[in-house]
Amino acid sequence: MALRPLFVVAGIGNASGTGSAAARAFAKAGYSVALIARNQSSLDACAQEINSRGGEAAPFCMPSYSSENFSDTFRLIESHFPASKYAFRAALFNIGYAVWKPFLETTPQEVEDSLNTNVAAAFAFSRETILKFKNNPLDEQQPTRGTLIFTGATASTRGSTTTSAFSASKSGLRSLSQSLAKEFGKDDIHVAHTIIDGLIQTGTAPQNETLKLDPASIAEAHLYLTRQAKSAWTWELDLRPASEKW
Amino acid sequence: MALRPLFVVAGIGNASGTGSAAARAFAKAGYSVALIARNQSSLDACAQEINSRGGEAAPFCMPSYSSENFSDTFRLIESHFPASKYAFRAALFNIGYAVWKPFLETTPQEVEDSLNTNVAAAFAFSRETILKFKNNPLDEQQPTRGTLIFTGATASTRGSTTTSAFSASKSGLRSLSQSLAKEFGKDDIHVAHTIIDGLIQTGTAPQNETLKLDPASIAEAHLYLTRQAKSAWTWELDLRPASEKW
Amino acid sequence: MALRPLFVVAGIGNASGTGSAAARAFAKAGYSVALIARNQSSLDACAQEINSRGGEAAPFCMPSYSSENFSDTFRLIESHFPASKYAFRAALFNIGYAVWKPFLETTPQEVEDSLNTNVAAAFAFSRETILKFKNNPLDEQQPTRGTLIFTGATASTRGSTTTSAFSASKSGLRSLSQSLAKEFGKDDIHVAHTIIDGLIQTGTAPQNETLKLDPASIAEAHLYLTRQAKSAWTWELDLRPASEKW
Amino acid sequence: MALRPLFVVAGIGNASGTGSAAARAFAKAGYSVALIARNQSSLDACAQEINSRGGEAAPFCMPSYSSENFSDTFRLIESHFPASKYAFRAALFNIGYAVWKPFLETTPQEVEDSLNTNVAAAFAFSRETILKFKNNPLDEQQPTRGTLIFTGATASTRGSTTTSAFSASKSGLRSLSQSLAKEFGKDDIHVAHTIIDGLIQTGTAPQNETLKLDPASIAEAHLYLTRQAKSAWTWELDLRPASEKW
Repeated sequence: MALRPLFVVAGIGNASGTGSAAARAFAKAGYSVALIARNQSSLDACAQEINSRGGEAAPFCMPSYSSENFSDTFRLIESHFPASKYAFRAALFNIGYAVWKPFLETTPQEVEDSLNTNVAAAFAFSRETILKFKNNPLDEQQPTRGTLIFTGATASTRGSTTTSAFSASKSGLRSLSQSLAKEFGKDDIHVAHTIIDGLIQTGTAPQNETLKLDPASIAEAHLYLTRQAKSAWTWELDLRPASEKW
Repeated sequence: MALRPLFVVAGIGNASGTGSAAARAFAKAGYSVALIARNQSSLDACAQEINSRGGEAAPFCMPSYSSENFSDTFRLIESHFPASKYAFRAALFNIGYAVWKPFLETTPQEVEDSLNTNVAAAFAFSRETILKFKNNPLDEQQPTRGTLIFTGATASTRGSTTTSAFSASKSGLRSLSQSLAKEFGKDDIHVAHTIIDGLIQTGTAPQNETLKLDPASIAEAHLYLTRQAKSAWTWELDLRPASEKW
Repeated sequence: MALRPLFVVAGIGNASGTGSAAARAFAKAGYSVALIARNQSSLDACAQEINSRGGEAAPFCMPSYSSENFSDTFRLIESHFPASKYAFRAALFNIGYAVWKPFLETTPQEVEDSLNTNVAAAFAFSRETILKFKNNPLDEQQPTRGTLIFTGATASTRGSTTTSAFSASKSGLRSLSQSLAKEFGKDDIHVAHTIIDGLIQTGTAPQNETLKLDPASIAEAHLYLTRQAKSAWTWELDLRPASEKW
Repeated sequence: MALRPLFVVAGIGNASGTGSAAARAFAKAGYSVALIARNQSSLDACAQEINSRGGEAAPFCMPSYSSENFSDTFRLIESHFPASKYAFRAALFNIGYAVWKPFLETTPQEVEDSLNTNVAAAFAFSRETILKFKNNPLDEQQPTRGTLIFTGATASTRGSTTTSAFSASKSGLRSLSQSLAKEFGKDDIHVAHTIIDGLIQTGTAPQNETLKLDPASIAEAHLYLTRQAKSAWTWELDLRPASEKW
């Protein structure tokens, strides 16, 4: 019997955010979903929404994004979604810690938090994910062992005034994703990075699809990456609204 | 009555190439297809294959890729696919002239041909395409007026020994696509550029999807770009086989 | 007896421009200077200024920037500066044809002129220059056979609205310079590209060194590139005023 | 009376390294030099060499590269080189922590050390340096308040297999340098980043200037950056040996 595909997404904020939209889209596409965040109520709301619509999701709250906590969390995920019935097939690192301040107002603590949350946590999440993907057998139905996606931002490719801490860490994350794409491609693991270039539509603001990114559309892009044939994988995908100036 | 969507693809080589694969994929997805190339027999073979499978395709052979010839050709296309029944909705500039030689062996004629075929022809093709797209009305079913895609290569982002003429012109093409993406996004026209980074699978060689790009997979990526929601458009997509070293 | 070093600069406009500033700076640094342009009076003015200050310069007016004309011109240069007394040691391709227009207003002729002047002419100039450099013997005093520099612009690295023809050709020029740098480094020929990112100070406008680029400062950068030791060559140098927003 | 210019360099390894070479070159160019590192004996050797040749250098050993330690160290530097006689005019962040390992062999501790040493330490060093530079008066002799340089590597612009931790942190450092260049240019502070692309010549190996970077040549590039006129500053300079493949 085929194993049910499991999608792990780290970084679930409120219901109108990109993490929740990804969870929703992957659930709809047939994945069971493991939700990771530091905020229990966001996790619970997202899990509940998916489960109430006939999907399958479970929340995994982490006290901090340390590598030990990630190891523990993935053990809990595997307890909840046992290897006998589920296979880790897709993962999204959507955790982002944004500091937008003039350089001299950015504190050492903010620099540290930015590096830990945006980069070190991504190393830990990637390690757990790739180890799981490596366990997946290859077959004609599933020529890709797993797809690991990172969400980046405009700041991932350039530093600007007021983005020193944010762009330093998002650039680091982007480089990590490129290293992983190059190292694990030959192991049939697809690693990708999306650049969200523009404002994201939030729940309450008036909608304008030519000016703002809809999280549901971002989620479609993430889902697309998991469906690419192994002969034509994308590492990096930029995403922006039709009228964005760039 | 809804107009039938028309896909124009310039650069049809043999049946196993990326141009033919795109024509085939778009036809399968419901587009009528206008095929452009300088070689009549390649065009005829591609059109015949599509028509024989229940699709609709017509060949348009060009004596040269000058701007006058493109104007004429688009007039012929519109005669064949009249505006009363068809709407230009997608276009692929897949023409590529590759010179791989040490710099001192590259002749002025090859430089000129490379710039004319890879860049000047793209300007002419883009002009015709964008003028057609601008005629399309917007509605809820079709929030994007049209999608214009260019195929690039590894050489589009860097010059190397033996690629002076090729990378100079492919870099130019890439810049053109970025200018167009920025200028016409606000007019609901989506312009994208794909970077084909690796060897392409050809008809006769043994297939290896982790080592070579399958034209059918490239075509899927092109089709995906036409389906992106207007709130999250991609300008650039890199495509490479799982085991590619880069 | 040591040969006198010769600097060839193509693209001499008015006296306050970057071409003239380079000619002046290299003359002051001990080079004889061959001046190339299509405008005889600009050339004469520049040559006269250098000669009147004790330098040595000669004008070479070209009817067009075709490859044949470049061959002829370099023959004339070598007649004027014979190999018995002079050695080609540095060259600057400073020719630039700028079109700033919305895409649909850019004519096929402007596209062609832009590609010919910014790219094809650079291929021809590079060929002549590199062939001359290759004749230079290496010795401890002159470990570099020659330095070939191209001037680029912001548009060399990205396309924007209104820059389609300009950025397509300047991107092509940049790729050419990278191919040449990679191919001829091992032959002790140094190829470099400078990105002029900002407005250039012109003769009559009030001077503001934090807001505009001074051509004399750009010339210093070009001169610096010729002085780099062979163990640490720069391919690309960006140059912008202190207060430039980028 | 003019204040004596002070150069602060962080990251002094052995005598044949880039940190020592920079210290030596700046001392020769008339700077007093403050040397920062974690290894007392390297610092002492470098200071002694400079002082014995008539230069002026002092060692400042740091127990760790924390922001508190940098604050303390800059206070000590200012005690040693009092503001009544010295002005901070140039600074080089040359600290580098290199981990070259397959991703799964890279430990969380190595990731943390890499981020702390390559990025967080650079934030702390930059803060101290920029605060000092801001105190410098501007005058015609000194139109630039100060020059802050970072040394990068090939890994600063791309991630590769075995460089995940190194390139993630060096990319972060590069973004930081770009943010600072953009933010502090208007305050007459010049921030630059050099990309050392190739092997560096070390003391004992046979010299080959076309294959390896000579630290003395790198130091010349750093010195050049401090001499650029304010109207034409470079942010990024790549440096590689003539025969390097790239």
